[in-house]
Amino acid sequence: MNEIINCVAYADGRRVADVNLQDVHTALKDSRQFVWIGLHEPSEEILDKVKQEFNLHELAVEDAHNAHQRPKVEIYNDSIFVVLRTMMRNKENHTEFGETHFFVGDNFVVVVRHGPSVPYLEVRNRCESTPELLKKGQGFVLYAVMDFIVDHYFPVVHDMESELEVIEAKIFKEKPSRETTEEIYDLKRELLDVKRAVSPLIDVCNKLMRFEIQCITEETRPYFRDVYDHVMRINETVENTQELLNSAMEANFSLISINQSDVSKKFAGWAAIIAVPTMLAGFYGMNFKFMPELEWHYGYFALIFVTIAVCITLFYFFRKSGWL
Amino acid sequence: MNEIINCVAYADGRRVADVNLQDVHTALKDSRQFVWIGLHEPSEEILDKVKQEFNLHELAVEDAHNAHQRPKVEIYNDSIFVVLRTMMRNKENHTEFGETHFFVGDNFVVVVRHGPSVPYLEVRNRCESTPELLKKGQGFVLYAVMDFIVDHYFPVVHDMESELEVIEAKIFKEKPSRETTEEIYDLKRELLDVKRAVSPLIDVCNKLMRFEIQCITEETRPYFRDVYDHVMRINETVENTQELLNSAMEANFSLISINQSDVSKKFAGWAAIIAVPTMLAGFYGMNFKFMPELEWHYGYFALIFVTIAVCITLFYFFRKSGWL
Amino acid sequence: MNEIINCVAYADGRRVADVNLQDVHTALKDSRQFVWIGLHEPSEEILDKVKQEFNLHELAVEDAHNAHQRPKVEIYNDSIFVVLRTMMRNKENHTEFGETHFFVGDNFVVVVRHGPSVPYLEVRNRCESTPELLKKGQGFVLYAVMDFIVDHYFPVVHDMESELEVIEAKIFKEKPSRETTEEIYDLKRELLDVKRAVSPLIDVCNKLMRFEIQCITEETRPYFRDVYDHVMRINETVENTQELLNSAMEANFSLISINQSDVSKKFAGWAAIIAVPTMLAGFYGMNFKFMPELEWHYGYFALIFVTIAVCITLFYFFRKSGWL
Amino acid sequence: MNEIINCVAYADGRRVADVNLQDVHTALKDSRQFVWIGLHEPSEEILDKVKQEFNLHELAVEDAHNAHQRPKVEIYNDSIFVVLRTMMRNKENHTEFGETHFFVGDNFVVVVRHGPSVPYLEVRNRCESTPELLKKGQGFVLYAVMDFIVDHYFPVVHDMESELEVIEAKIFKEKPSRETTEEIYDLKRELLDVKRAVSPLIDVCNKLMRFEIQCITEETRPYFRDVYDHVMRINETVENTQELLNSAMEANFSLISINQSDVSKKFAGWAAIIAVPTMLAGFYGMNFKFMPELEWHYGYFALIFVTIAVCITLFYFFRKSGWL
Amino acid sequence: MNEIINCVAYADGRRVADVNLQDVHTALKDSRQFVWIGLHEPSEEILDKVKQEFNLHELAVEDAHNAHQRPKVEIYNDSIFVVLRTMMRNKENHTEFGETHFFVGDNFVVVVRHGPSVPYLEVRNRCESTPELLKKGQGFVLYAVMDFIVDHYFPVVHDMESELEVIEAKIFKEKPSRETTEEIYDLKRELLDVKRAVSPLIDVCNKLMRFEIQCITEETRPYFRDVYDHVMRINETVENTQELLNSAMEANFSLISINQSDVSKKFAGWAAIIAVPTMLAGFYGMNFKFMPELEWHYGYFALIFVTIAVCITLFYFFRKSGWL
Repeated sequence: MNEIINCVAYADGRRVADVNLQDVHTALKDSRQFVWIGLHEPSEEILDKVKQEFNLHELAVEDAHNAHQRPKVEIYNDSIFVVLRTMMRNKENHTEFGETHFFVGDNFVVVVRHGPSVPYLEVRNRCESTPELLKKGQGFVLYAVMDFIVDHYFPVVHDMESELEVIEAKIFKEKPSRETTEEIYDLKRELLDVKRAVSPLIDVCNKLMRFEIQCITEETRPYFRDVYDHVMRINETVENTQELLNSAMEANFSLISINQSDVSKKFAGWAAIIAVPTMLAGFYGMNFKFMPELEWHYGYFALIFVTIAVCITLFYFFRKSGWL
Repeated sequence: MNEIINCVAYADGRRVADVNLQDVHTALKDSRQFVWIGLHEPSEEILDKVKQEFNLHELAVEDAHNAHQRPKVEIYNDSIFVVLRTMMRNKENHTEFGETHFFVGDNFVVVVRHGPSVPYLEVRNRCESTPELLKKGQGFVLYAVMDFIVDHYFPVVHDMESELEVIEAKIFKEKPSRETTEEIYDLKRELLDVKRAVSPLIDVCNKLMRFEIQCITEETRPYFRDVYDHVMRINETVENTQELLNSAMEANFSLISINQSDVSKKFAGWAAIIAVPTMLAGFYGMNFKFMPELEWHYGYFALIFVTIAVCITLFYFFRKSGWL
Repeated sequence: MNEIINCVAYADGRRVADVNLQDVHTALKDSRQFVWIGLHEPSEEILDKVKQEFNLHELAVEDAHNAHQRPKVEIYNDSIFVVLRTMMRNKENHTEFGETHFFVGDNFVVVVRHGPSVPYLEVRNRCESTPELLKKGQGFVLYAVMDFIVDHYFPVVHDMESELEVIEAKIFKEKPSRETTEEIYDLKRELLDVKRAVSPLIDVCNKLMRFEIQCITEETRPYFRDVYDHVMRINETVENTQELLNSAMEANFSLISINQSDVSKKFAGWAAIIAVPTMLAGFYGMNFKFMPELEWHYGYFALIFVTIAVCITLFYFFRKSGWL
Repeated sequence: MNEIINCVAYADGRRVADVNLQDVHTALKDSRQFVWIGLHEPSEEILDKVKQEFNLHELAVEDAHNAHQRPKVEIYNDSIFVVLRTMMRNKENHTEFGETHFFVGDNFVVVVRHGPSVPYLEVRNRCESTPELLKKGQGFVLYAVMDFIVDHYFPVVHDMESELEVIEAKIFKEKPSRETTEEIYDLKRELLDVKRAVSPLIDVCNKLMRFEIQCITEETRPYFRDVYDHVMRINETVENTQELLNSAMEANFSLISINQSDVSKKFAGWAAIIAVPTMLAGFYGMNFKFMPELEWHYGYFALIFVTIAVCITLFYFFRKSGWL
Repeated sequence: MNEIINCVAYADGRRVADVNLQDVHTALKDSRQFVWIGLHEPSEEILDKVKQEFNLHELAVEDAHNAHQRPKVEIYNDSIFVVLRTMMRNKENHTEFGETHFFVGDNFVVVVRHGPSVPYLEVRNRCESTPELLKKGQGFVLYAVMDFIVDHYFPVVHDMESELEVIEAKIFKEKPSRETTEEIYDLKRELLDVKRAVSPLIDVCNKLMRFEIQCITEETRPYFRDVYDHVMRINETVENTQELLNSAMEANFSLISINQSDVSKKFAGWAAIIAVPTMLAGFYGMNFKFMPELEWHYGYFALIFVTIAVCITLFYFFRKSGWL
């Protein structure tokens, strides 16, 4: 069955045996053992089996099937249900979100993976290679996978910081454009999505650190403080990026206005430079009987000379005062 | 009577009998039974009967009659009074709001429906088809109807998300227009209305989950956590949409300015292209005695050629620098 | 004396006797009685008498005389001091604010009215007509007057909502104007004033509902929940209106910009339509020796025809692209 | 010595004797007495003496010397240290800030004045004239001086409200100008400074009202509620003014845009009125052989007439549509 | 070894001996002694030794090695781990951030310095010169270094205030420019970085002041209140500067618009002054048979005179109404 990635019993930090989902209850008779099950988008039947095997609450199992949850931790009498969002950057440089759910009880941890995310085989291997940590039990497994998920937030957030820098460069170095405005908006939208995944985790970690939850031993609790710390830093970075993005939007807007002002000035300058010879030409196109300049032999050339002189003067004047 | 939709006694999760409102007290003598009454915009007399039958607080009954309440839960000694807003999209694609009030006591639940909303017959049928759940009592009925109401918020909120996407497309793909601005404003207004209906529910659910309320049994409480979760998600979506809408408004504004700048540039470009031949023509309209070009046989055609050349050059120049 | 509106002793919900302020202490010897005194902008002497009669705290009495207080409740050992703002719309459609202060003790309630407000005779009559409620004591009187005051907030707030709608209509249907901007600002200012009167009441009601205040009996407390509810709704409406007003201001601003853009387009369009014939006329005003068109018999009329044709073409072109 | 303004022992609300700073400990042997010392920008030596005399904490004394503190109250074992900012309007209509520090213990109160502020002799006189209040002890002195300081905030804040009104008048009645923008900014800056002085006082008063501070007797505590109230009102006014100022800035900005739009319209209107006769004149400056109008005897006058007629028509048209 | 700056044992406030890191445990056998170790970007081995010597928590040591932490305090059973950010202005007038970590236990304090910061030798010297303070133990050392670090924030923050003043001067005295907008943005970015370093310290100080932390003696606690106070003031200044910067950005934006308006007016004014003579010249360029002015001997000069008169009149008119 493809939905069940793994189902292994551990004792004293060491792998004991691969168990069949049906036989889990026999494995759990030995109170020193705990079972770590990895599922991937499981069908209702599989979840039903898990539910019966571990006596889970109907509503939590329903949530685990639907997979459109906010990050949260729900504390039932003898088990907890944890939801996290996973993040991955796809090839088109967009962030894709998945979900991972955990059921943790006294002697089991069930990890349910939905949507795009890196598989957790790596975490399992790492855990199995440090038996002195893994023997802390199912609470440590919860920590290890959560830490793994949260560590994958960092590259996503750093990518967004880089995008912000690209936008800043565009705003301050290039001309204002529709594209920049749209990019700002898109980044804002993505940041909101990331924030929605990250910020509820502060509360989740707090609960895991503080509450008297049976299935998490006391020596495991400081580890969740570590996750908490990472989440705080990511959250801070996201909020910082949001704030800078807002400022960038305003700066962009100021520069659009300055740019508009520059266009007006440039137009005004050139309009003046063209208007003066037009006016002069109009004057000597008048039909007055007696206009002495018209009779001069070099009148025409004198006018051309004067016109050019005036235009050049205006040009230098406007350039000096920053209009051209 | 049309105001009383239903008045049924249940025992052990199963329908026992349709009761007459006057005879409710006899039905309630059997302590294993509870009564579920559905009312629709009841008259004062009906409410008065209900009040006396179940010994409700005067102020709560007054509220239930007026039907302009905020979502809330009020805890009296032996009963609670809950107010929820209902939402429906009408044919003109606007959201219509109704109200539903609940009186829940030890052995009764009265559901009072005001304004536009889907009838709750469907909930009753669903409840009756799962007697193992319905036997949890009147608290479960409260949950079932609340869940039904809150589930009807989702399509409304998703509609608004779609409207936002339409607006985004208009902002970034089409020209800025008065209509878009007005649509943004209207969506904002609707979102505020929805938020007003949804956000107080967080507090309502919290109270129902945590407080030691007699008439809600402990095993029913996790179900309200489910409603809480839905409300949180809807609330989050609404806030997200609001924030994006604000950004959309600012982006719209930036694009209006860029557009204005483009108009100015286009105008300036064409003005220059027309001003140059006008100036040239003015020159050869002068009446100087001695203007050699005027005497040339092909002077006129030369001028036309020069003019066209200059205009084309300007056109290419402006096009290259993005002014045309 | 005009400052003392009323001074009546009640027992068991029924009016016992009009008392003289000096004789209040004799009336209060009967522990079942309480006294309800109504004052209107009392002089220092009157307040002094009241102070001595009921043993009130010096600072509270000073506050009651000055009448520039924030809404608040102050709890002294054996009495409480409550301040509320009253609101009235005057003939020029502006909101006028007054103040009403309450001293409530074990067997008295003193209501001090300052500034413009509806007199409370109506409340007294209404209370006297429901002795079964009035017999709940001085706490109920406090509720009755507070409820009366808060009920008078509704028309003021609804007026402001209407004003907002008028402003919306002006923004979206008419041209942007200085007047609209000023009206938005004025409404904002008024809303801030109203908010200052309303929002501290949430805290006031909370204290009256929850605190163990001797002089308010437990059965009176749910009534303050009713006032609390009204205050919450008014406060919500005010905040909603404020938020919409902010959005309206931004929408207004967008439309000013779009309007400005429209002016520019219109100007550009007409400028082009006039510039083309001017240029053409300039051409045929040139003095080249050899210009064949000038010799044509119908050259002039041809030119006029061409000019008109070009102008009409431009006109249709600009109209189609929305510039005219 | 100029730094020691006063050093007086009080017993039972009455001045007992002027004491020398060195002899304070003898005066304090009588447990019914307390000492009130007034200092003005004291040197380190004086502060050192005070420190030893009353056994003050090193850090508090350091703070009192440096005088760049936020308003705060620090509670030590047997004494408290309070910092307040003082405000004064100088002749150039700017607000100047000073600081006043208090050391209050079981039988002493030391008031240290820094920077510009009204001297506290007036408070001392007022206190001495009401021995029945002064006998409440050093806590009452603390109240009296704090009340005096906070009362001096009112004129400053009212001045700022008047400045806002002046700015409003400029915005809505006059043309937008650089000066108005700068004035808005300056007022904002001043408001921030005032807010920094006022808002921490809310917390200070709260602590003085609620905490079990030995050196403030219980009957003095309601007096700090009075100061708290004043601080709340000032703070509210400052926040109100800030919010209105923000709205004023936005309104100003809208009006700048409307004004810009008006300039464009005016320009467009006059440009059209001048462009039409220019075009007409251009037409009759053409050199076509056959142009019948040119031959007419009154052609020229007819043209002038037509031109004037067209211009007047345009003028009325533009005026009607609000462009001129 | 360069990574270990110092490793000294103290007893009763006085330097006892320089110890070798390996021999620390022997030095600590004397319970009156404590060890103060200063490290600079230590290698993993050194940190490992320290970890074993003092029995530190694995996660804290990992943090101390990575050095990308938020300011925080973590409380373990028998030691605390504190992280602070350090700030320095470099030669290009930018702020550089470093980190300093502290491990504090019952008889040791380890200070780990990362990135750019002033060395702490100065603090050590100062501490050693006041043995009566240093004998308060390792808690006082923590205070002394924290105080030293926080004192170095002040010049950074004051520099930023000066930068704001430079920006204000540019906004209100010079023409709006792209550079000013970019400088505002850059300052905003730097302020956010500083805020990120400072604001978490409020919480850190609070914990150090209030929590029952064994390794900080009660008489050391008021000293952290001093650090708290400094942090509050710096934080306040940063927030103030941020708020003023936002207002400056808006003011800048208003002035850009006013400037744009001025450009339009100037352009309109000069356009009018040039358009009038152009129109007049056009008139007398018409070829009507009968135009009396053309025949006048001084017609031409009269026209020149009229033209100049009109232009001067217009010039004065525009100047008076502020358009030129």
